[in-house]
Amino acid sequence: MKLAESTWPEIARLDKDRTVIVAPYAACEQHGPHLPYYTDTFLVTAVAEAVEQKLPDEMLLTPTQWLGASSHHLPFGGTLSAPVDLHIRLITDPLREYLRQGWTRLLILNGHGGNIDTYHVALRTLHDEFPQAHILGASYWEAAEQIIADRLEGPFKQVGHAGEAETSLMLAVRPDLVRMDLRRDCQRRLRPELEGLYVPFDMKGRTREGVDGFPSYANAEKGKDMLAAIADRMVEVVRGLIGGAEWRD
Amino acid sequence: MKLAESTWPEIARLDKDRTVIVAPYAACEQHGPHLPYYTDTFLVTAVAEAVEQKLPDEMLLTPTQWLGASSHHLPFGGTLSAPVDLHIRLITDPLREYLRQGWTRLLILNGHGGNIDTYHVALRTLHDEFPQAHILGASYWEAAEQIIADRLEGPFKQVGHAGEAETSLMLAVRPDLVRMDLRRDCQRRLRPELEGLYVPFDMKGRTREGVDGFPSYANAEKGKDMLAAIADRMVEVVRGLIGGAEWRD
Amino acid sequence: MKLAESTWPEIARLDKDRTVIVAPYAACEQHGPHLPYYTDTFLVTAVAEAVEQKLPDEMLLTPTQWLGASSHHLPFGGTLSAPVDLHIRLITDPLREYLRQGWTRLLILNGHGGNIDTYHVALRTLHDEFPQAHILGASYWEAAEQIIADRLEGPFKQVGHAGEAETSLMLAVRPDLVRMDLRRDCQRRLRPELEGLYVPFDMKGRTREGVDGFPSYANAEKGKDMLAAIADRMVEVVRGLIGGAEWRD
Amino acid sequence: MKLAESTWPEIARLDKDRTVIVAPYAACEQHGPHLPYYTDTFLVTAVAEAVEQKLPDEMLLTPTQWLGASSHHLPFGGTLSAPVDLHIRLITDPLREYLRQGWTRLLILNGHGGNIDTYHVALRTLHDEFPQAHILGASYWEAAEQIIADRLEGPFKQVGHAGEAETSLMLAVRPDLVRMDLRRDCQRRLRPELEGLYVPFDMKGRTREGVDGFPSYANAEKGKDMLAAIADRMVEVVRGLIGGAEWRD
Amino acid sequence: MKLAESTWPEIARLDKDRTVIVAPYAACEQHGPHLPYYTDTFLVTAVAEAVEQKLPDEMLLTPTQWLGASSHHLPFGGTLSAPVDLHIRLITDPLREYLRQGWTRLLILNGHGGNIDTYHVALRTLHDEFPQAHILGASYWEAAEQIIADRLEGPFKQVGHAGEAETSLMLAVRPDLVRMDLRRDCQRRLRPELEGLYVPFDMKGRTREGVDGFPSYANAEKGKDMLAAIADRMVEVVRGLIGGAEWRD
Amino acid sequence: MKLAESTWPEIARLDKDRTVIVAPYAACEQHGPHLPYYTDTFLVTAVAEAVEQKLPDEMLLTPTQWLGASSHHLPFGGTLSAPVDLHIRLITDPLREYLRQGWTRLLILNGHGGNIDTYHVALRTLHDEFPQAHILGASYWEAAEQIIADRLEGPFKQVGHAGEAETSLMLAVRPDLVRMDLRRDCQRRLRPELEGLYVPFDMKGRTREGVDGFPSYANAEKGKDMLAAIADRMVEVVRGLIGGAEWRD
Repeated sequence: MKLAESTWPEIARLDKDRTVIVAPYAACEQHGPHLPYYTDTFLVTAVAEAVEQKLPDEMLLTPTQWLGASSHHLPFGGTLSAPVDLHIRLITDPLREYLRQGWTRLLILNGHGGNIDTYHVALRTLHDEFPQAHILGASYWEAAEQIIADRLEGPFKQVGHAGEAETSLMLAVRPDLVRMDLRRDCQRRLRPELEGLYVPFDMKGRTREGVDGFPSYANAEKGKDMLAAIADRMVEVVRGLIGGAEWRD
Repeated sequence: MKLAESTWPEIARLDKDRTVIVAPYAACEQHGPHLPYYTDTFLVTAVAEAVEQKLPDEMLLTPTQWLGASSHHLPFGGTLSAPVDLHIRLITDPLREYLRQGWTRLLILNGHGGNIDTYHVALRTLHDEFPQAHILGASYWEAAEQIIADRLEGPFKQVGHAGEAETSLMLAVRPDLVRMDLRRDCQRRLRPELEGLYVPFDMKGRTREGVDGFPSYANAEKGKDMLAAIADRMVEVVRGLIGGAEWRD
Repeated sequence: MKLAESTWPEIARLDKDRTVIVAPYAACEQHGPHLPYYTDTFLVTAVAEAVEQKLPDEMLLTPTQWLGASSHHLPFGGTLSAPVDLHIRLITDPLREYLRQGWTRLLILNGHGGNIDTYHVALRTLHDEFPQAHILGASYWEAAEQIIADRLEGPFKQVGHAGEAETSLMLAVRPDLVRMDLRRDCQRRLRPELEGLYVPFDMKGRTREGVDGFPSYANAEKGKDMLAAIADRMVEVVRGLIGGAEWRD
Repeated sequence: MKLAESTWPEIARLDKDRTVIVAPYAACEQHGPHLPYYTDTFLVTAVAEAVEQKLPDEMLLTPTQWLGASSHHLPFGGTLSAPVDLHIRLITDPLREYLRQGWTRLLILNGHGGNIDTYHVALRTLHDEFPQAHILGASYWEAAEQIIADRLEGPFKQVGHAGEAETSLMLAVRPDLVRMDLRRDCQRRLRPELEGLYVPFDMKGRTREGVDGFPSYANAEKGKDMLAAIADRMVEVVRGLIGGAEWRD
Repeated sequence: MKLAESTWPEIARLDKDRTVIVAPYAACEQHGPHLPYYTDTFLVTAVAEAVEQKLPDEMLLTPTQWLGASSHHLPFGGTLSAPVDLHIRLITDPLREYLRQGWTRLLILNGHGGNIDTYHVALRTLHDEFPQAHILGASYWEAAEQIIADRLEGPFKQVGHAGEAETSLMLAVRPDLVRMDLRRDCQRRLRPELEGLYVPFDMKGRTREGVDGFPSYANAEKGKDMLAAIADRMVEVVRGLIGGAEWRD
Repeated sequence: MKLAESTWPEIARLDKDRTVIVAPYAACEQHGPHLPYYTDTFLVTAVAEAVEQKLPDEMLLTPTQWLGASSHHLPFGGTLSAPVDLHIRLITDPLREYLRQGWTRLLILNGHGGNIDTYHVALRTLHDEFPQAHILGASYWEAAEQIIADRLEGPFKQVGHAGEAETSLMLAVRPDLVRMDLRRDCQRRLRPELEGLYVPFDMKGRTREGVDGFPSYANAEKGKDMLAAIADRMVEVVRGLIGGAEWRD
């Protein structure tokens, strides 16, 4: 069920122990010269709605929060970003009330790399407050890592930023907003002695035009195929969350 | 121009002194048994997009922030709400960066009564930091008070909550989501000796089913007419903001 | 009863359900060349004490908090101001303890325009925490709007800043501190296309010498008359608060 | 000069390097069965105004902030208290603006024991931000320790709470508010092995009726004498602050 | 150089562009029945000091901050933990001052899994403030992932909690504090459909006695070997940080 | 018992009403040209461990928190400092959990002058939350004021900063880190008219090289003697804390 389109009596009838709250988080940040600011929001919403179509009775889909932790994109201009501490609260504060009112299953569906640290911190906070609830989070590319790697044809097998994966997915979801003629391939890597380290960066210092990856390899067919497979994977996750205990011997 | 659908080179080309940033804020909160949670978001977005269609070159429209200050609706369940201090930061924090980067004209377009106090506080904060910028805010019903009053036919001439105005506008914008058969008229007023006072309340204590007003009087035609007139009024406001000084002798 | 002059055994004997806590909030900010910084504090205290004299057994009057949210007056120098988030806490934090200890009726009596947004946010916060308490707020000119308008003779029928109303009231309350020879009339209005909008401003940018209104029309007699009528209106409000439920069908 | 009674052009004419801002901080808290809640505020204001009368041209006296850090008195009821972090900001936030605008000499005149830690922290914060300014603080009994001890006749030679010193001073300042017939002597001390330690306490746990000391020894004459001598000492301090460097070899 | 043992004139002589500040962060949390609370602190300090011995002139080693983000261990009792927002500030606040004073190379050396999210958020914050500085972070097991995996003999090839790796390292560093007779092997995994997801947990809910891994496989020799190899790897990292730009085409 | 070296089952067996948690707080700040940054940490840890050796069964010793409130030393460079509000939380946040879990006796053992205000505020906060707990604090030189004064031979009978007392204690505890040849005597005092006042300062403005006192008078024998006597005094305090009520008639 989509919260945005529902009424309160409809929500009041749901079983709080057998319905997973799925809350997508994304961003509104530059995506190179060929993709729009809303790329992450379009994509994670497309995943979320595909899952909701398959599991309309098992999940309650909240609207996608498009304001992400995107300070590393600010130098390009136009990006709307939440400071990290604000982004943490964008997750904890509205969802806390659901948990207080007795909901027991929550899945953060993340669509922006800059939100990973913040959603981790947010879920730890909520878990400390509601230790009995089943609280999980996943960036769609973490839960579907192999699915995505298997389908990419260019030299980089991860999602990156405005690269082969995101461009393909956008060609599947909103082809009218993709300027393929303006695409630029670009990939700069950490020096080998720094592998395994965490290096905060801003995209303007790291890339030429805000792209990390190889959009040249993108096409719509691949995007549709990936989107369907990612959605299938997330269906499995949502069903798993209803199933109960996360850990097993 | 819509930020969500633009690329960074397109934004970089805009004139920061002659383009008004229009930032809509709304809510995702219960709207009685006949309107969906996203009512405020659908409506203010419809107003904003109508204005953008008329002034594509004079304004940059940001995505509608749907998370509102809605704690007074929490008792109905399902509502997603930002505490007041968080909501203030939802306005100041992402928009501050635009002002830092040299944009000079900002209009908050508000679509939720619970956001009035928070957007006031937020704009005061931003004004203190950027005293030279032209910063304004309006709930659409404040800027178009007479326009709305002139068109309402029931006994209550203001927007209220899920009443004649909002229901008519929803019938114009998303008729598929209006359950007219479930509408309930309800209006409870302050005792006369308390007129002119500010009384915080929760909707469950104040109303029977989350409705303040008379949805029975609603129809789609009235909604379309109001929407067009409100948009025309906001076009006037945006043009006024480009014009310069707010005060005159 | 005045808290400042009472002892703890006297307070301990009060009926927490039948005594209204009346808490005045004001400011210490520039008031043009003819009125002192403490104008708002003198005036709201005069109103509060007049009400207390009429209802000594029905209300507990706290000291006037003179530190207001006055950042818009800082450019004139000398003003002592609380940032908006601090001002909110100046209301919530000391009064929360009363509500925790079982008091059930609270009235914020506001004497400064810059505090309106902050007292609204503060009362919403307290109401969320103590939903059963009867919590209200009023700027004296909001509760007595018509009373004041009826008595003003100049072209502006509201209180403004250091204008006809405040100057008359000061001539009634502390005539020794009014420099009538230095008064300046001044009124600058919003451009008509911006009517109905919220425009944060600083007084130095908006006025010539910190005055918004027409002090030339002021006299002591009018001030005394207004003060008495405002106090009568507030007596009615305090009695109303004891009466119980705020809303009626 | 008293800020409260001045106008902005009068303040604008002051020499920011040769005028000491004197800012009194006090409390509104229970003072036993015989003294009123406002005791600390009445007393430190009396000291401050006596100093201002002697040095009208060398100092700018701000209004006394009566909201103190008084959580240890809350159990008696009626007390209005700021949490410690709020009280720190009550000092830093309004006074920071004076320092920003170029004032260079600031004296906190403290009249409440519970404010000592908070004014220390506040002054450290301001000093870190304005290392060139001359910033000092004193509880009146710290600056006049010997003066007070010399004049007390009972067994306790310090100010305490509602004891000989405060009761005598109140008999000098507001005798109409002293209920001498209800006075109670009480003094409980730390066990000797805990001497030199810091022990947070609440007054209800520590005293019988909110009194620490011997009000029986109080009289008005002693109060007037002490008040005059304390004021003379503070005159010396204010003059010292104008003189320049705090430290010498 | 070790900051703790140095004097200020020695630090003042260092080259701020050619000395890496190495700041270890750890925890004081339960480590099962056989390892002490300080395990993470002992281990990361041992690594840090081994690196410092090899690069005394290229790095400035700060003391290990032993207070970690360990709320997931609180249910066992005894653990000292910083809430996540506090832990972020434990990193940003003291180190910010170094960056302000002109140091340009900073490495967080992390020794506790619960600190990963917080050090990421902290480094993003510092990077936003000092975009020109070279700021990196690494948990020692991230930078030396393969080195550790190659040396472990039990069924789990990662560090875990109080398992083969940590127990071996403790046998190398502080054998007097290891109670090998009380060791317990334990490993519970996520259900396979949840792989790739982030699941906040508390150790008491997830493990039997606070151990995740196989301490039975531990021995001192393996610990010494791992420690030396990890230190060598970190020497490489520190040298890399002096070298300059992190990214290459 | 030392927490750092214990295991959780050992802690779980302790009697929460008869074991005093002793938590040392210190600093990592410049100590002149002859003492190391860690001086306060070395010294308070030496005191704490000496007490623990005498009362292993009556106290639980936490690790020394070396990050102090040291902003007044920042201008010398190298100092690691927590802002005052952060330092307060460094005390309240980890220790709160102990009190929540039922521990009833807590002693802050402070080793740094800059922490006095912050530990006071922290203990007031904890006391407000846990009014039944026995919570105390002491800087070692406050609890042992006379003991120290009796043993100092130079002209200054207090601990100061890097003076006779601290240098003697360091010669007893870590003589290898004392550069006696670089010692400098220095003492600047407040002007006499400012006696009794609180004056925030930075050490660079107040001293020549970061020393306040007379290290020339220091020797190791005196240090050992003082250390033993201070520890004996603290043994008395810890025993006193177990004994119960702090106040007596």
